[in-house]
Amino acid sequence: MTDTVAPAPAEATAARPYSPGLEGIVAAETALGYVDGEAGRLLYRGYRIGDLVERGTYPAVANLLWTGEWEPRHHLPTAPVPAAVLTALRALPLTAKPMDALRTAVSVWGATQQLDWPPTPEQARALTAFSPSALAAFARLRQGLEPVDPDLALDLVPGFLYQLTGNFADAGTARALDAYFIVGAEHGLNASTFAARVITSTRSDIASAVTGAIGAMKGPLHGGAPSEVVEQLHKVGTPEHAEAWVRDAVARGERLMGFGHRVYRAYDPRAAALRKVAEAMDNKPDWLELAIKVEDVALRVLAEKHPERALKTNVEYYAAAVLQGVGLTPDLFPATFALSRHAGWTAHVLEQAGANRLIRPDAIYTGPPERNLPA
Amino acid sequence: MTDTVAPAPAEATAARPYSPGLEGIVAAETALGYVDGEAGRLLYRGYRIGDLVERGTYPAVANLLWTGEWEPRHHLPTAPVPAAVLTALRALPLTAKPMDALRTAVSVWGATQQLDWPPTPEQARALTAFSPSALAAFARLRQGLEPVDPDLALDLVPGFLYQLTGNFADAGTARALDAYFIVGAEHGLNASTFAARVITSTRSDIASAVTGAIGAMKGPLHGGAPSEVVEQLHKVGTPEHAEAWVRDAVARGERLMGFGHRVYRAYDPRAAALRKVAEAMDNKPDWLELAIKVEDVALRVLAEKHPERALKTNVEYYAAAVLQGVGLTPDLFPATFALSRHAGWTAHVLEQAGANRLIRPDAIYTGPPERNLPA
Repeated sequence: MTDTVAPAPAEATAARPYSPGLEGIVAAETALGYVDGEAGRLLYRGYRIGDLVERGTYPAVANLLWTGEWEPRHHLPTAPVPAAVLTALRALPLTAKPMDALRTAVSVWGATQQLDWPPTPEQARALTAFSPSALAAFARLRQGLEPVDPDLALDLVPGFLYQLTGNFADAGTARALDAYFIVGAEHGLNASTFAARVITSTRSDIASAVTGAIGAMKGPLHGGAPSEVVEQLHKVGTPEHAEAWVRDAVARGERLMGFGHRVYRAYDPRAAALRKVAEAMDNKPDWLELAIKVEDVALRVLAEKHPERALKTNVEYYAAAVLQGVGLTPDLFPATFALSRHAGWTAHVLEQAGANRLIRPDAIYTGPPERNLPA
Repeated sequence: MTDTVAPAPAEATAARPYSPGLEGIVAAETALGYVDGEAGRLLYRGYRIGDLVERGTYPAVANLLWTGEWEPRHHLPTAPVPAAVLTALRALPLTAKPMDALRTAVSVWGATQQLDWPPTPEQARALTAFSPSALAAFARLRQGLEPVDPDLALDLVPGFLYQLTGNFADAGTARALDAYFIVGAEHGLNASTFAARVITSTRSDIASAVTGAIGAMKGPLHGGAPSEVVEQLHKVGTPEHAEAWVRDAVARGERLMGFGHRVYRAYDPRAAALRKVAEAMDNKPDWLELAIKVEDVALRVLAEKHPERALKTNVEYYAAAVLQGVGLTPDLFPATFALSRHAGWTAHVLEQAGANRLIRPDAIYTGPPERNLPA
């Protein structure tokens, strides 16, 4: 019933470079993050991630990404949640995924703001300060608790913990989560950051860009499956069982969660920074003790069994240990990762807007040739 | 205060293909839409857009995009708005932009649904049927009116008009808007569709993808500035002033809104299809009469003055005329465009998921070389 009235359009369009997943295609220039997987280096505006964790805070690092200026004492408290956002969060099912709640909160926030083009560091700051309060509010609402207002004397990460629990975290706990936020802040053109840049490229607003980025990070190929590391540590149980458990698992051919990375061949510098902070905690949660012990055993066993593979600890391993250690439930891990990435997303939005060009790749048409509708 | 401790990373990364905006880079294969700007052709799965408008309805075209099957009598009514969405919409400021409201509605909708991977045609259908009800609800709420429940006997576009106005539209009006929805349904890898595919590529859900797509379309480089055509027609006033007004405008070097397109060198086939439907209306709104007259004059004058440029009517011209003609206010045009594109976005989500690969391009790092933090 179909008439071919022209050659297949695909034939006319097959000459352009095609890279599924755009691997090896450069889609942007960026002065923000540099990922050097071979050497195990991650730089934000030239500064090593380990140095930033050692000497900075998340607000200072976020400010560095937005402005290029290093002000180690830069203060950024969490921001109040507009009434419209709270109403929307209260209306969500208690079983809604925290990523869906955060995506919705940012979208409602955007609808309540005047977000003129071009996006500004002030807009980036306001959105980055808003989202932790919104996620904390949702986390409490689904437990039947009332949201806690921001304490403007606290910096962003201890402020988030305060709004989550209603209590002031001890310094070590806040420090560990702050380190997590710093290492999560930026990582080049991953899928969520790229989504934010594509959305910005139409001259849309910063809330639209971050709403899209949260949606992208929600996917397990990007945000990961953080509960897997936690479940693995659950199975190990206690440090003294680590050696036997890891050897059994490797002998059975099981994949150890939290080891190996697409980009990093050397030790993931983010995992290294988080381990260092974890080791320095005065009151180390049992989780972190266990994670450190299991890592030591796992690296030793993996090197014995697969010396050719160079499987090293990845950031998800210590991320899970730290997040669990500071008292977050695994279903909050992806949304907390999204909070930490706000600095990078919004910095990329500013960078994209500063040298903007509509991002609109080509497609190869592989469908039917031109034809008539069936009679 | 900064020490250069390594060569600039950019030097190590400058060899890959770089296309700002990804122009000329093929990011996906698609069997959905084929845009042939030279010849003025637009095909959905091989079928000419003009034929689809003549013989189809928006639900039939959407179903074609989702399934590949042509069922001209495919019925799709608008869907009820979940209570959580209505609560969120009621909480928005009355001055919120309709695109922000629609983005929020889709995000809340996603939080209320079980959207397992992979996305399905049923999910696409449910979301496409939901969004018109949500936008209509917001449009009424901001006027102080209560939302109208869907009439399940109506197809999607007359159903949308019914929920918007509380009245049944006459057949010609519904037909004109349905034609608009068909020509807006799909247009290859534009920025919003690409954003939807990037988000889907992480195995995120269909609501996250469409939320991001709406955010991308919100930008004026994509969604356009539809009020400009309306304002131009306002300035012309009546058909008898068209000739003088157009000649004056062109003589003053003003740009005529609604003419010229980045891709189409020949007459935009979407504009042609919309004009045909508009001309056939029994009770043509004055707007459409005026638009047809102004177009004739403008094409004649532009061909006289700039024979080398081939400036033809673009889809925005008739889109504005039709949307204004059926009674929509200009600030609802971008969100109505977004409603029409739901079919294409969700079809691309299905297509991306069916042959998925994480979309993650490279970046060239242009920031400072590795350096120490200031002391």
